[in-house]
Amino acid sequence: MAASVQLVPALESIRPHMEQVACLLDARLAGVREPLRSALCRSLGAGKQLRPALVILVGQLLGALPAPCIVLAAAVDMLHTATLIHDDLVDGAALRRGRETLHTRWSVGAAVLAGDCLLAEATSLIAQLAHPSVFAVFSDLLCRMCSGEITNLFLSAGERYALASYYRGIEAKTASLFAAAAEMAALLAGAEVSHAAALRCFGRELGMAYQIVDDVLDLIGDEARLGKPVGSDLRRGVITLPVLLYLECAPKDDPVRDALLAGADEGQVRAAIAALCASGAVEAALSQACAHVEQAEAALAGVPDNAYRQMLCALAEFVVARQS
Amino acid sequence: MAASVQLVPALESIRPHMEQVACLLDARLAGVREPLRSALCRSLGAGKQLRPALVILVGQLLGALPAPCIVLAAAVDMLHTATLIHDDLVDGAALRRGRETLHTRWSVGAAVLAGDCLLAEATSLIAQLAHPSVFAVFSDLLCRMCSGEITNLFLSAGERYALASYYRGIEAKTASLFAAAAEMAALLAGAEVSHAAALRCFGRELGMAYQIVDDVLDLIGDEARLGKPVGSDLRRGVITLPVLLYLECAPKDDPVRDALLAGADEGQVRAAIAALCASGAVEAALSQACAHVEQAEAALAGVPDNAYRQMLCALAEFVVARQS
Repeated sequence: MAASVQLVPALESIRPHMEQVACLLDARLAGVREPLRSALCRSLGAGKQLRPALVILVGQLLGALPAPCIVLAAAVDMLHTATLIHDDLVDGAALRRGRETLHTRWSVGAAVLAGDCLLAEATSLIAQLAHPSVFAVFSDLLCRMCSGEITNLFLSAGERYALASYYRGIEAKTASLFAAAAEMAALLAGAEVSHAAALRCFGRELGMAYQIVDDVLDLIGDEARLGKPVGSDLRRGVITLPVLLYLECAPKDDPVRDALLAGADEGQVRAAIAALCASGAVEAALSQACAHVEQAEAALAGVPDNAYRQMLCALAEFVVARQS
Repeated sequence: MAASVQLVPALESIRPHMEQVACLLDARLAGVREPLRSALCRSLGAGKQLRPALVILVGQLLGALPAPCIVLAAAVDMLHTATLIHDDLVDGAALRRGRETLHTRWSVGAAVLAGDCLLAEATSLIAQLAHPSVFAVFSDLLCRMCSGEITNLFLSAGERYALASYYRGIEAKTASLFAAAAEMAALLAGAEVSHAAALRCFGRELGMAYQIVDDVLDLIGDEARLGKPVGSDLRRGVITLPVLLYLECAPKDDPVRDALLAGADEGQVRAAIAALCASGAVEAALSQACAHVEQAEAALAGVPDNAYRQMLCALAEFVVARQS
């Protein structure tokens, strides 16, 4: 696994650290029973590794020792993968990164336990750091993420169509993890309070931008690169920012509203995607993502200006420019 | 909730502490969205509260401050309830303590998130203690419990019928939580290493006895008191100690073997229960539970002898004498 770590091009200089993260992930799973171990190995260390990279960059920026940052980066990747496994189960998603999701491949029980196992291993890595403020941020993160998912599951019909619910949802689901990853890395570096707060803010804004772009790519992305069909969110009735911005000025009998009704057929979903893409909603959503990236970069104004700060900015710019 | 805390009779003197545990549990759930909050409130602080009581007794025995022990006891109850919710989902159990399980009442998604939420809140309480060794024992416990459940899910046919698998399974599922609860309470008291190890051993043996008795009560208990039908384990193909001891000397065409085959009918299950109860297997299993209680009591030989040590012994004796 270590040899195939995918990285955002501007971050090549942290590849050695990221390979150590990948090795640590492999080592931690060595005791998990097959066939689950192989399935988890494929899920961990997959994708673009933005969250562990954020940990490494912040640690390097502020002069943390590499070893604890590698442990933290592995914990963050494990927690992230745990939440993907449980969220796919809650949402009933069949595919993730072009592969069958765990509950589709094995069973509901295997997916529940695989997520629990990764969460336990992540907690164990955090415990290894023996840093009470890092535990506190980590446990607060767990509570925020779960509470957001629960709120989302029990939204009333009115709340589902409110922009405030969308922003609250992506903050809990995505931005809180980026924020905590950056803050924990700053704490490991023994950063002063203002720097830790600035990095938390950077992480939060980066996470907001990331999720908005993710939601846009679900509509306009390339299916082969996404690893799932375009319009997956619409099909599952998940209402994202471009949809909300579109509906603000759409008539009552609009094709996008029809596609969101239970029992909508494939033709209705395709018509809704076409209507969304022909409107300005996708661009309006992307411009919100760009605004979050600007706020992320602004948050870095007071932190040391070195090559790692430049890489954090490159990471932020990648997040809005990416195609998958 | 606080007013209705159920306690083992010999433990009345710790009722004030246990009521504080119940209040803390209520307070921690205040922010969880309805209808899940009410469902979780009914699950937490329910049952005989043996694990939180163990925390309080060990803390008092070794002179810990009450406040952190109350936090730890609440965390232990939350973790225990989280594992019940996820295990019921993995096992497909429909009833727990006479009520519909969460996944039956709501959905798979709600049960996954409810378990995750309790696990997150438990971790947050542990983080509040700001005690790195306690965090380490807690995270090690999470790994043991998950690993045990995963092993159990993927047992081969041969392993399912092995006594070693049964003992390993109940150690991971039940004894590890009792062991860690007692050890963490000892650590909060600043106990010397030998005392912490003795209390861990006490907890482990108590947990082994508890689970064996639980498995016996599933066969011989009173349905109304158990809150579930007799023979639930057999119906779900879960192979427990009395069954294993019985099968050691049963012929190939025995009614118990028939009841364990997929598609066994109610008549076959009833016949198997009758055969098990008429054999010496139930008594043999109970005598193993008694041996674990003796080992638990022996582990206490070197710890201070005061009223709380007597209450720990009373708790151990209750575990084998209980009817539900």
